[in-house]
This record gives sequence, structure tokens and C-alpha cells, in this order.
Amino acid sequence: MEKQNYNHLTRTFQRLSRFGHLSAIAGWDMFTYMPPKGSAARGEALAELSVLQHQILTDKKIATLLQAAAQEDLNDVERANLREMTRRYQEAVLLPESLVEEKSLVGTRCEHGWRTQRPANDWQGFATNLKEVVRVSREEARLRAEAKGKSRYDALLDLYEPGMTSAKLDVLFGDLRTWLPDLLQKVVAKQSQRSMITPVGPFATGTQRELGLEIMQLLGFDFDGGRLDVSAHPFCGGVPEDVRITTRYDENDLVSSLFGVIHETGHARYEQNLPREWLGQPVAHARSTAIHESQSLFFEMQLGRSTAFLRLLLPKIIARFGAQPAFDVQNFVALNQRVERGYIRVDADEVSYPAHVVLRYEIERALIEGDIEVEDIPALWDEKMQHWLGLSTKDNYRNGCMQDIHWTDGAFGYFPSYTLGAMYAAQLFNAAKRALPQLESDVAEGNFTPLFDWLSQNIWQHGSRFTTSQLIANATGEDLNPLYFRKHLEARYL
Amino acid sequence: MEKQNYNHLTRTFQRLSRFGHLSAIAGWDMFTYMPPKGSAARGEALAELSVLQHQILTDKKIATLLQAAAQEDLNDVERANLREMTRRYQEAVLLPESLVEEKSLVGTRCEHGWRTQRPANDWQGFATNLKEVVRVSREEARLRAEAKGKSRYDALLDLYEPGMTSAKLDVLFGDLRTWLPDLLQKVVAKQSQRSMITPVGPFATGTQRELGLEIMQLLGFDFDGGRLDVSAHPFCGGVPEDVRITTRYDENDLVSSLFGVIHETGHARYEQNLPREWLGQPVAHARSTAIHESQSLFFEMQLGRSTAFLRLLLPKIIARFGAQPAFDVQNFVALNQRVERGYIRVDADEVSYPAHVVLRYEIERALIEGDIEVEDIPALWDEKMQHWLGLSTKDNYRNGCMQDIHWTDGAFGYFPSYTLGAMYAAQLFNAAKRALPQLESDVAEGNFTPLFDWLSQNIWQHGSRFTTSQLIANATGEDLNPLYFRKHLEARYL
Repeated sequence: MEKQNYNHLTRTFQRLSRFGHLSAIAGWDMFTYMPPKGSAARGEALAELSVLQHQILTDKKIATLLQAAAQEDLNDVERANLREMTRRYQEAVLLPESLVEEKSLVGTRCEHGWRTQRPANDWQGFATNLKEVVRVSREEARLRAEAKGKSRYDALLDLYEPGMTSAKLDVLFGDLRTWLPDLLQKVVAKQSQRSMITPVGPFATGTQRELGLEIMQLLGFDFDGGRLDVSAHPFCGGVPEDVRITTRYDENDLVSSLFGVIHETGHARYEQNLPREWLGQPVAHARSTAIHESQSLFFEMQLGRSTAFLRLLLPKIIARFGAQPAFDVQNFVALNQRVERGYIRVDADEVSYPAHVVLRYEIERALIEGDIEVEDIPALWDEKMQHWLGLSTKDNYRNGCMQDIHWTDGAFGYFPSYTLGAMYAAQLFNAAKRALPQLESDVAEGNFTPLFDWLSQNIWQHGSRFTTSQLIANATGEDLNPLYFRKHLEARYL
Repeated sequence: MEKQNYNHLTRTFQRLSRFGHLSAIAGWDMFTYMPPKGSAARGEALAELSVLQHQILTDKKIATLLQAAAQEDLNDVERANLREMTRRYQEAVLLPESLVEEKSLVGTRCEHGWRTQRPANDWQGFATNLKEVVRVSREEARLRAEAKGKSRYDALLDLYEPGMTSAKLDVLFGDLRTWLPDLLQKVVAKQSQRSMITPVGPFATGTQRELGLEIMQLLGFDFDGGRLDVSAHPFCGGVPEDVRITTRYDENDLVSSLFGVIHETGHARYEQNLPREWLGQPVAHARSTAIHESQSLFFEMQLGRSTAFLRLLLPKIIARFGAQPAFDVQNFVALNQRVERGYIRVDADEVSYPAHVVLRYEIERALIEGDIEVEDIPALWDEKMQHWLGLSTKDNYRNGCMQDIHWTDGAFGYFPSYTLGAMYAAQLFNAAKRALPQLESDVAEGNFTPLFDWLSQNIWQHGSRFTTSQLIANATGEDLNPLYFRKHLEARYL
């Protein structure tokens, strides 16, 4: 057999993928349907599984197989798959099994506590659990940093966006700092000139759900291979063959759930269109968290809040909820392109969103590097919110550092992905527009086929075949260029 | 350490229990929420997990540990746990890993196919998959029979109700044959004397669900540790900490979903009240499938269809759906104690139910022993339905041998549990009545505490500590005695 080592590895990764399937579904269930008393047993079961996955991935034979496979006659896709296998092995073998189990357990506990601590604004209770998460994540960062010869935070960052560093982020986010606060101020001032009419509810959540399903259909979601459910914090989970997205409903706020659905549908279409022929192999996975976020923001922001799309959406809303003054076209477009300084990241518009991300990036980096402690978070949060958005979160933990479940599972290093994703999304949409001169009229007519074909050909179908830089350069003709994001914001909002 | 071998085993079984948790939740999801395209990947993931569980359970060390632990100083519960561990090990070690994987895969495929084949009445399509299931189950039966020195069918029967044999069943079911057809005829004739008014729908399924939840609450279901959902075939799944029951709704038939809920609540309360302090160990599991069915039938038939309970239920139905002639008390009681010859086992009343079970017992035994083939099932089904119930299922596969998902996963040997369960339920209810003289008035007042305390003390809290015979003898003063079932039917229906 020519590729016997490589083939042996593909069987191992196929097996890992099957266990990953169970982890994904049990994880989805934990956030959607699991009753509270299931939590401890679920946490233990998932921790046991993560230990098993770690054991399989770090088996002594794997290093030998990886080395031997590198000498075999592999095609481009197989070589890319081997590169991704190697990366996973190297990241896993750094961690002792006990740490993997502990990370899983403290994460589940912290998330579970958050469900009741957030409504109660119980920072002390939450901090107790979060300290355990931080302790474990610092240990993880230390081990990764030593092995990779990087700073502790960079060693985590690299997990989500391979090759990304704080040095690069400081340049990208430093650039944002030079123009974003000013832009934000100008847009808020400009928008304050016009009065907007707010939609008057209640909007029955059942009907909101039906509308969400209709829009998912319009955006090409495959319901034979996925579902829409409800969770406290919207997310896209499951597996490529069975993608589970969630939203949350507010009877008084129709568009919040809807744009949540559009955002998660972007994630879902990426997953549903990953290369079928390699499924179960690392090369068939989404490229990175930043590219994943670029797809959700492409759907939500680039496409979803464009005037053409909003005009397409409005009659569908009126058909379900009836007309009202807020549903005047001009008003509806203005409402959904409104820029406001707010507390909640996931509700933020695309102009103020980067402020939320930079704030957390700075805090989580300092936390992992050991420059600050968990107790320091609320004051720092307040200070940075005041600085960027002029809002105080003093004693308002529930809308401050306890507003979502990021950090509870120790996913430090993930946050920058959101703003990197926004930048990639703007760059990709610009390239799509150049490639598709009819794009705006196509969108106005509800014909998304050319746009989604472009995304599929340029992003979705490649999985992890290329590095992020190669993928973006192939799709757009250049590496990440944050200018497209700035130009997009200026064009839409100024 | 005094009990080091035993303690090593408890850690292994704890680990198995955690993987069992994931299997239970992914299995529940498969029947409730999974979209069709998830099926193949789910089947592979569950098969991979079943192979892993089999590997852990049949590890070479286990036999040595079991032998060594038997010499250790164990208390009664530990010794019972060791007995159950040994039984599981011995049952597992008989099967090669490849057969375990194949059984899981052909089972998932057959169940998945059934979902569309049943509505299409597609016997040929279903038979193709079922043949694979039968082939694997026959091989399993052959291996178990050789090792246990039993007949092939008895070797499977023993998995569900340890110690049960076809010889014993032939006595029990032979007894039924002497009086049940006659009783059935008499009851049907007697009931034909009175005209009954059928409830007129539609009954909104959302309201049916709310009513179901109310009754679950009344029956002590713990919603912090479980849920109610929908599936094509009602079941009780999940884990003791998180029990998942399902029902199905028909807008024109209010009581079918409701009694489904009551039945599954019986299973659920058993699971929710298994001994907490041993959870994760084999001794904490439900005693057997027959005892499990005895609890659901205790709830549905002994309690649920008693006149006192029906009188309690009726005002709750009227409160949600309004009054109508069918909801006259006498009529409502008569309706829910109606005996009718029907095609569908799960809709059958308790008088005709044993006919469905004996029919399948005879067919599945012949199938496993190799006396008949899958192709022979429809004709045999038709013949036996004609004999027992005077109904023909010729060409009506969907309401004949394709009516439910029993057999699709190769659970041959399970069917007798239903009628054994009905017999145990009658015997237990009789013992409870003797112990609780106030029972009928308690039920009429909705006070179930004494009854459920009795069940908890006599059945639920013991898990698998005792053999079935011991458990029943401790609870009722004698071993299984089918006379109670006959007396119950005669008292209620003649």
C-alpha cells in the first residue's frame, strides 16, 4: 500500500470525528433542551469524552504515523489534510489528560452557574467559577506558550486563527482606534438628526419563528440537514450533516431574533457546504473562527442590513405582522442601519461592535498573561466601556462582563475573531460585488444564487485546504486588508 | 486497600455510564429532533460509541477483576452490584466487536427507513433492511445460546428479563389462552350494549401538550430532571438525572396522547427515583424491562384508567377544552375503559393487549430460532390477528407488522416484557391496595403521595439490588402470580 500511514491516520481522524459528532449534539442539547438537573452528569459525560478524544489524538503511534505519512505520495488535498492533522496533534499533545478533563468540567460548571447568576446580577458567584476557568486556561496557555515559543495569549490565539499574533492584532486594532471613535461619533450625530419610529409589539414569538424559518429558506438553509431552536445565547452548533442554529425571542423586538437567525444562517451555510467528500477529516473543517465569523457577518451585516435586502425583507414582515408606521420603507431601513452605543455586544451594530471586541481582547489578554486578576474585570470593563462608548457598567454586571457565555468555557483568544471576521466579510463582499455586477439587483429580486455560488466556490467548498491568507488571497486578490471594512462603514453610514 | 478490585470495577462502570449518557441523549435526539440528513452520521457515531463501550466492558482485565472482587469484603449492595457487573461482562464478552458495530448500524438504518416506509406501506423496502437486522440478531442469538446452553430465543429473552425462559412464558401465555379470548368476547359483547359518545375535536395540540404537562406534574414528574417532547413512537429515554419522555398528538384524539404521557410518566418516575447514591453503577439500573413496563402500566392501566382517576382527570380536560356530551362522567369513564379489537398495539386496551404480545412473541421466537423467514411475517401476522382479534392485516403492512419500531434495532426477546409487566402491575397494585386502605379515596382527591411512596419503597429505590423474583416477593409476598392480572380484568370489565 502506497499511503498506508496516511490512510491509517484518516481512519483515526474519522473515528475522532464520530466522537466529535456526539460531543456536538450533546453540547447543543445542553444549551437548548437539557433540564437543570442533567447538568452535572452531562458535564462529566462530556469531560469523559474529551479525555477519550485527547487519548486517541495523542496516542504514541500518531507522531510516527504523521512523520511517515509526510514521506508518502499524497495529493494536494491529502497534504493539506496531513498539515491539519499535524497541527491538531501538536496542539493536543502539549496538554496533560488531567487538564483536558478539568477544562471541560470547570467550563460546564461555569456556564451552568451563569444561567442563574446573570439574571441575579451575581458577580461574586460567577467570579468564583470564572477563577477556576482562568486558572485552568492560564495553565493551558503556559504549556502551549512554552512549546510554541510564543507569548501565552498568542499561544491561545493561534488555536482559533492559525498564524495570528497580538502584534498583528495591535496593528489592526490600533488602526481602528485612529478612525472608529470619530466615525462612531459622526454617525450617531448624523442619525440623531432624523427621528425614527420604533415598531410597536407584541410580536408573537411563534410568528417570529415562522418568519425566521422563511428567511432561512430564502437564504438557502437546508432543513433536511439542520434545525432552528431557542437558546439563551444564540449559536450555531451540531455537525456539517446536521447543523443546529438557535436564536432567542423578545415579544417586543422583532428584528433582534430575525438578525440573530440571519447571522447564524451564515455560519450554517458554511457548515452545510463544507466539502462533502472529505467530511470527517480535518481538511473538511471550517478554516478558522475568523473565517466562520466572516460568513455570519457577511450574511447579517454585508447582505442582511444592505438597503436592497431590507427592502426585500419588509413586505415579508408586514405580511406576517401587519403594517404600522415603523414599517415605512425609509424608516425600516434607517432602523436597521441605526448606530447606537449599547451595553450588549451581540445586539451591537457593526460600527460600535469593534469597540466591544477590542475591550474584551485587551481584558482577556491581560488576564491570560497574568497582568490582571478576575476581580479586576468589572472595573476595567467599566473604564473601557466609558472610554469607547461613554457607558458605565458599574455594578451592572449582568449587562457588563456577565452578559454572555464567552470565557465560561475558557475560549480565551476567540474574541478577536469577531472583528477579523467583520474585516474579512467586508473584503469578501467587495470582491463578490466586483465579480457579480448584477449583485444589487439580484438581491433586490431575492435571487441569491449567484452570490452563494460565489461564496461556495471561493470559501465554503475549500474547508481547511488552504491557510487563511491563501484562502483570502485566492478569493479577493490580496491578504487581509482592513481598508474594506472602513470603506464599507463609511459608505453605509456617513 | 481492602476492596481495590471492586473499586477499580466501579470506576470502569462509572466511565461506561458516562458514555451511556451520551448514547442515550444522542439516541433521544435521533427520535425527536434530528433532521433526515443527520441519520447516516448519527448511525456511525452511535455504532462507534457502542464499539467503544464493548471494548471497555470486555477488556481482558475485567474478568480478572471480577474474580478477584468476588473474594473481597463487600456489603450486600456491593455484592449485588458485582453480580450485575458480572452479568453485563458475560453477556458482552460473547459478542465480537464487529457484530456489535454491525448491529448498531443495521438497526439505525432499519429504523430510519421505517420512517418513510411505514407511511408508504412499503413492505419490500422495510423487509430488505429487516433481513439484515434478523441476520445479525440470529448470529447474536447463536453465540449467546452456545455460551449459555440455552435455546437461541431464550438466550435473548434472558437479556431483558434475567431468568425468564420460553418454557415459563409458554405456561403463562398458555394460561392466558384459556380465558382471555373468552373474556375479550364477553366484554366486547357487554360494552356493545351501551352506546358511547365520542369526543369531537379538534383538540389543539398545544393545549393537549399543556394538559399532558399538568398531568405529569400531578403524577410527580420532576421537570428539573426531565422533559416531554414529541416522537413518532412514544418512548422514555435519557438518563436517570435527565429523563426524556415523548408522546404524539392527534388533533382528533385527545386521550391517546394523554394516556401516552401517563404511561411514559410511569417509566420516568421509576428512572427519576432509582437510587441516587449508586447512580452510574449497574446496581442502580432498573431491574428489568418487565419491571419497567410494570411501572408504566401501573400508571396507565392500574391507576390511570381506574374510575377514581378518570373522575379526577375529567374536570381538567373540561377546563382546557370546554364541556361537550362526550365529557359526561359516565360516558368518559366508559370511553376510557372501552375494550376494542384493533390493529395497533400501542393503542390497545389492556384486555386485548396481550393478544398483540403473544402474536409477536410467537413470530419473533420462530424468526430467531430459524423456523420462519422475514418473508413469512405478513402472512403469519394476518393469520394470528384473525385468530386472536378477528382482524385481517392482509396487504395492510403499515398497521400490521410495520406498525412500530420494535424489531428494527434487533431487540428480539423484549416483547414478552409488556405482558409480564401487565401481570406484575396488577400484582403490585393489589399489594398496594392491601397496604393502603385509603387508596381509592386518596386517588379521588388527587393525593398520590402514599401510593408513590409505596412504589418508591418497594420498587424504585432498589434498582437492581434484588433479582426480579426477590423484588416482587418482597413487595407482594409471592413470586409472579398471573391470577392478579386476570382478577383485575374481570373486576374492571365484566
